[in-house]
Amino acid sequence: MLQNEDIFSWESWVEIPKNSDFSLQNLPYCIFSTADNHTKKIGIGIGEYVIDLHQAQELNFFDGIDFPQNFFLNDALNDFISLGKVITNTIREIIMFDLKKENGTADSENILFDHQNQILIPQKNAIFHLPVKIGDYTDFYSSREHATNVGTMFRDPNNALLPNWLHLPVAYHGRASSIIVSGTDIYRPKGQTKAPDAEKPIFQATKLLDFELEMGFIVGKGTDLGENITTENAEEHIFGMVLFNDWSARDIQTWEYVPLGPFLAKNFASAMSPWVVVMEALEYFKVETPPQSEVLDYLKFKGKKSFDIQLEVFIKPQNSEEKLVSTSNHKFLYWNISQQLAHHTVNGCNMNVGDLCASGTISGSTPDSYGSMLELTWRGTKPILMHDNTERKFINDYDTVIMRGFCEKNGKRIGFGEVSNFVLPAKS
Amino acid sequence: MLQNEDIFSWESWVEIPKNSDFSLQNLPYCIFSTADNHTKKIGIGIGEYVIDLHQAQELNFFDGIDFPQNFFLNDALNDFISLGKVITNTIREIIMFDLKKENGTADSENILFDHQNQILIPQKNAIFHLPVKIGDYTDFYSSREHATNVGTMFRDPNNALLPNWLHLPVAYHGRASSIIVSGTDIYRPKGQTKAPDAEKPIFQATKLLDFELEMGFIVGKGTDLGENITTENAEEHIFGMVLFNDWSARDIQTWEYVPLGPFLAKNFASAMSPWVVVMEALEYFKVETPPQSEVLDYLKFKGKKSFDIQLEVFIKPQNSEEKLVSTSNHKFLYWNISQQLAHHTVNGCNMNVGDLCASGTISGSTPDSYGSMLELTWRGTKPILMHDNTERKFINDYDTVIMRGFCEKNGKRIGFGEVSNFVLPAKS
Repeated sequence: MLQNEDIFSWESWVEIPKNSDFSLQNLPYCIFSTADNHTKKIGIGIGEYVIDLHQAQELNFFDGIDFPQNFFLNDALNDFISLGKVITNTIREIIMFDLKKENGTADSENILFDHQNQILIPQKNAIFHLPVKIGDYTDFYSSREHATNVGTMFRDPNNALLPNWLHLPVAYHGRASSIIVSGTDIYRPKGQTKAPDAEKPIFQATKLLDFELEMGFIVGKGTDLGENITTENAEEHIFGMVLFNDWSARDIQTWEYVPLGPFLAKNFASAMSPWVVVMEALEYFKVETPPQSEVLDYLKFKGKKSFDIQLEVFIKPQNSEEKLVSTSNHKFLYWNISQQLAHHTVNGCNMNVGDLCASGTISGSTPDSYGSMLELTWRGTKPILMHDNTERKFINDYDTVIMRGFCEKNGKRIGFGEVSNFVLPAKS
Repeated sequence: MLQNEDIFSWESWVEIPKNSDFSLQNLPYCIFSTADNHTKKIGIGIGEYVIDLHQAQELNFFDGIDFPQNFFLNDALNDFISLGKVITNTIREIIMFDLKKENGTADSENILFDHQNQILIPQKNAIFHLPVKIGDYTDFYSSREHATNVGTMFRDPNNALLPNWLHLPVAYHGRASSIIVSGTDIYRPKGQTKAPDAEKPIFQATKLLDFELEMGFIVGKGTDLGENITTENAEEHIFGMVLFNDWSARDIQTWEYVPLGPFLAKNFASAMSPWVVVMEALEYFKVETPPQSEVLDYLKFKGKKSFDIQLEVFIKPQNSEEKLVSTSNHKFLYWNISQQLAHHTVNGCNMNVGDLCASGTISGSTPDSYGSMLELTWRGTKPILMHDNTERKFINDYDTVIMRGFCEKNGKRIGFGEVSNFVLPAKS
């Protein structure tokens, strides 16, 4: 495997704009089509382009590797991921090598370089689709600051964390069918809500539409029922990560969630970035997990298992500029993703390629780093001023919520693109 | 469509043993293979046989219907269900007609009759598989008696039902990957548990393994995100029903479930009967839903929306006979399946063909009709005596738990077969 110390000095013959998410060291995967050609294909991001892997195969780029014809004409990454990391990493490294500046010359016999007009599709011409077919979706609750904020607001400020919280990464099952790709509009959901002083619930469109700033990881190697994954080998089972907005309706949630957890308050939509950044790209940005209380053996781990991924949330009112409302970081999470996967499978629960595990809302310790409007406006008591001088307590109709994420170290950057949704009024 | 009043008088030329689940009026679907032929196929149950629909197609039974070749060689019913009720009901009615006694004669030009040795596979030679590929699995909590029992034991006997319970069919998302077919052995799961007086949790195999007597329905017609299903058209979206055992680990559940609901306590395994009984077969056994408090408009309904399905649970210790431990009925459910589906989609949550919605534990009002060991033994305070004189508070290693279900009216019976699992000790 190529070493990060080496490759992070590499440049590409593809022009990479300053602050691009899609550096040579990233090469995230996506599923895309174009206005001219509705067939979905597997692509890789570089600079302002998508590498069309199907076109690359047609032009004999993969000769010598035994791919079935049309393998890259696919509406999801699952079949590709299922090849296993030995193969997918090799392919990524071959592509990285061929995109290296030194290998982009007329006499380099480089198919990507020689046929760049056919293989490199401008991202602005691409239509992006949900990158994976998600079998099961699990949402963790792994930010101590988020859990503390919610506990403080809704329960007891002096006992904000519930007794189990420091002992296990709390999680619940979410709805996979309503996970949508960035760019998909969402309707304001309707449902039952009940005011604290009301005698009965009423049926209405949610008045408290909220985002949750999350990231998710995609399972890359499954397990059978009865097997478990350890903190030590968890990363072998993870293909990559995405940005994730776990849309929430707070008034519906308050009324429905006791005792079995959130349901209709969440399953009307959750949104994912179109790009899956592989774990090998993130390796360079690993950091220590925040200090933890003593945990049971199966949750203990060694080494750096957290990731320094800077996260931002913007609200864009319909006729105004984007307003930055939160700046957070994946490294703030109390429970790391290896612990999440070890906990999830310690009872023998099986994993399939394409399963999604999201982090839960990622809040930091300062009020500008909270990952939801619920926390940022402290239940609406501290509205946020937009650039057009309108205030937001929660999300309005015709707002767009945009989340971005990227790693930056020693002047090198790899990013996740964005997850963005425009909010339509409730269907009548 | 054939009328129930007519068809419930029909007899078949296939011998139907007394008390068979698989009468001419049932014709449930399954996915099966045989020891000789591992290819999975779609089948229909009749008497002691499975009708091999692939073989039937090969023998030109479906001539005139435009099925692709090998359509019935399939590892799940989803593609078949996706044809829609107009087609699937027509096929079922043609088969029912051809299985009718009067049509089983040498001169009837009846392919099923003429080739019965090739098309009718003895069930004892069949290996049954999970009948559907389940996208999302939702578990409701729709038995008032069960919710009341649990609330009485764990919260306040005077306020056993939580405030939302009579206003909406409470539900949560479950894990689809760990749903297994009847006959699959399960391992006793391990996990964190904490005794009430202990300072810290410990990691151990569950000491309180339990079943939950449930039934589930399979979504037969999907919806797009943003659409909703009404109580009036809900049954058009339901293909059929199955028996369902929502295996549970009570000690793991108690420690983990606040505030986001059950997770590892449930997702180690849930088991389904191999037979899907279609709604059209159940139509004859419809009854009134129990009286309800006033509900919001979208939960109101007209007509008979509940089903008189008798349910039984047996425990079979390894070297002893089956002991009947519970006798319940699907009609006891407070919320009917049309209300469940209307609630689930009222926020625009989309449904896909093959999604599973389970009922939650189905308990009746008498102690012998409770649907879990938790309730039957009242948290272990009233052990149940097996035929071998051993006692059960919960489920032991090497026990088999068997659930059966059937409808019976005017001497006619249609049944669901069984869901049965043998419990293995925790993996070491």
